[in-house]
Amino acid sequence: MTPRLAWVLGDPAGIGPELVAKGLADPATRAVCRPVVVGPMWLLTRGMQVAKVHLAAARVDAARADAAPAGSIPVVDAGWPEQEFPYGVLSGAAGALAMEMLRVAVDMARAKHVDGIVFGPLNKEALSKGGNPHKDELHLFADWLGDTHVSEINAAAGLVTTRVTSHIPLKDVAASIRPERIMLAIRMLDRTLKETGVAHGTIGVAALNPHGGEHGLCGTEEVEIIEPTVARAQAEGLPAMGPFPADTIFLRARKGELQGVVMMYHDQGQIATKLLGFDQGVTIQGGLSVVITTPAHGTAFDIAGKGVANPGAFQEAVRLAARMAAARAAARA
Amino acid sequence: MTPRLAWVLGDPAGIGPELVAKGLADPATRAVCRPVVVGPMWLLTRGMQVAKVHLAAARVDAARADAAPAGSIPVVDAGWPEQEFPYGVLSGAAGALAMEMLRVAVDMARAKHVDGIVFGPLNKEALSKGGNPHKDELHLFADWLGDTHVSEINAAAGLVTTRVTSHIPLKDVAASIRPERIMLAIRMLDRTLKETGVAHGTIGVAALNPHGGEHGLCGTEEVEIIEPTVARAQAEGLPAMGPFPADTIFLRARKGELQGVVMMYHDQGQIATKLLGFDQGVTIQGGLSVVITTPAHGTAFDIAGKGVANPGAFQEAVRLAARMAAARAAARA
Repeated sequence: MTPRLAWVLGDPAGIGPELVAKGLADPATRAVCRPVVVGPMWLLTRGMQVAKVHLAAARVDAARADAAPAGSIPVVDAGWPEQEFPYGVLSGAAGALAMEMLRVAVDMARAKHVDGIVFGPLNKEALSKGGNPHKDELHLFADWLGDTHVSEINAAAGLVTTRVTSHIPLKDVAASIRPERIMLAIRMLDRTLKETGVAHGTIGVAALNPHGGEHGLCGTEEVEIIEPTVARAQAEGLPAMGPFPADTIFLRARKGELQGVVMMYHDQGQIATKLLGFDQGVTIQGGLSVVITTPAHGTAFDIAGKGVANPGAFQEAVRLAARMAAARAAARA
Repeated sequence: MTPRLAWVLGDPAGIGPELVAKGLADPATRAVCRPVVVGPMWLLTRGMQVAKVHLAAARVDAARADAAPAGSIPVVDAGWPEQEFPYGVLSGAAGALAMEMLRVAVDMARAKHVDGIVFGPLNKEALSKGGNPHKDELHLFADWLGDTHVSEINAAAGLVTTRVTSHIPLKDVAASIRPERIMLAIRMLDRTLKETGVAHGTIGVAALNPHGGEHGLCGTEEVEIIEPTVARAQAEGLPAMGPFPADTIFLRARKGELQGVVMMYHDQGQIATKLLGFDQGVTIQGGLSVVITTPAHGTAFDIAGKGVANPGAFQEAVRLAARMAAARAAARA
């Protein structure tokens, strides 16, 4: 089964429309899914102009993507009126339009018209000015879909990672490390690995304290919380190991010993993943009932409209979404 | 002035004696300093055998290294009785011997018989079993020398780093971030950069919280402590910048924008430096009245005695110590 994926254009002032156009023009990316673009036709046309891509496109009803003429790209356009969005300019209007496109795509997914969603880069501040009441798009999706246990998953270099805590002050991290959150993170990575085709992945769980707490001499969370939780995960058949000291867990991953890493807090993960090139990786909106992915990089306002954006991460986001959507379809069948 | 450096053999069961032998056999390393080996002659001989190095060596008095015959390596041997130290076996006896060698070298430095010290790898547990009452060798040196404000400095890849806090539980980190500790770290890196020949280095100071605290929305230490301290450092003429979010500060450093990085806590620095190859870098015993360096890697018990140890980091430790010792001599002159 080749999954039908909604490709959402993203923030109109950024590189999203250009990335979608470049992705559509790439035969390898097209081959893994049946794309349906979600967004204004005039914005897709601009993206194609910037990308110097010439493809036929046809407006379709959200329920009838297959009705597009052979060889033309189906586009679900809700009739959004044409507006100017100067490249590189952050605005609430751009965020509001991006949010409307996402809403259409999510509704299509709920109605089973698409098997998953890939979206072009968003700007969190623009989204917020445009009316997003949540701190990010992940929690907006969770609200729309009624999903309650969500967590961002980062994928790159053959590795998936997620965090037990995220945007909280460092002083509050230790008190927020709880068994159920660690279990959720392990389960989420396990599912993601299997759905992305890694049948026998190992998930490393990071320690919280220097040198993994030195058996309780330098912090007690490992002994009291993390070790028992890893043992519980193992008892449930999950391929978890650890806790490993945070300063060596990514060396293990780089050597290929781990395919998943559960980090305890924001910078513990981000320091490593940014050095390992995850900024050119993929973000998976973890824990949702619909498969949704996006490139990890941002709107790149500095190069928007110039035609020089690298579509590699967007194309990888398409590949991962296609694999995950196919896996979920197979599991349902 | 070519500085006289004490080369201390390090833990006898590790790769230290082999590294010293390989360093002595390398003309480029020999050229930057006048070495005097500190340790048992029989242990140096073993190191040469393992390294397959054949050099003449002559026992000298600690005050008379120049008295060695031309072309032979001066060795200060306190008459340590020959013992077996099986390679790769951690023991208090090995730690005690290593500590005695270090003591002789420090006394030589205090008496101005040498301008600095480089030592082969130690094992902290062996040192402790051998009688070191302090948590590491840095604090042993500080005790012997009467120095009170010390901090480990890590050097590699054209970058020097140090930490404001170190081996404490993560939950205690935020409360330990204090202005005077940050100032000490900045001053120490500034001095180290100048002494190692980087005349116009820039020192980046890391933030504590995710995204640098987001102007107080996600942690207040940046606004209340770190930003004012960086401003104070700048007012004193120190080349400090920041605070920078911890997940991008090492990307800036890798691009060459920073030559020094002040980190707030152990893993914040170690995650990055281990990925950047600092394990093959140099540790500078910062804040001491005597220049002391060592390779960042350990005793490598798994390969000790096999002749395969890479002397690169030890040689770099010699080069840095020579530069720093020469700079301090020039400053005194």
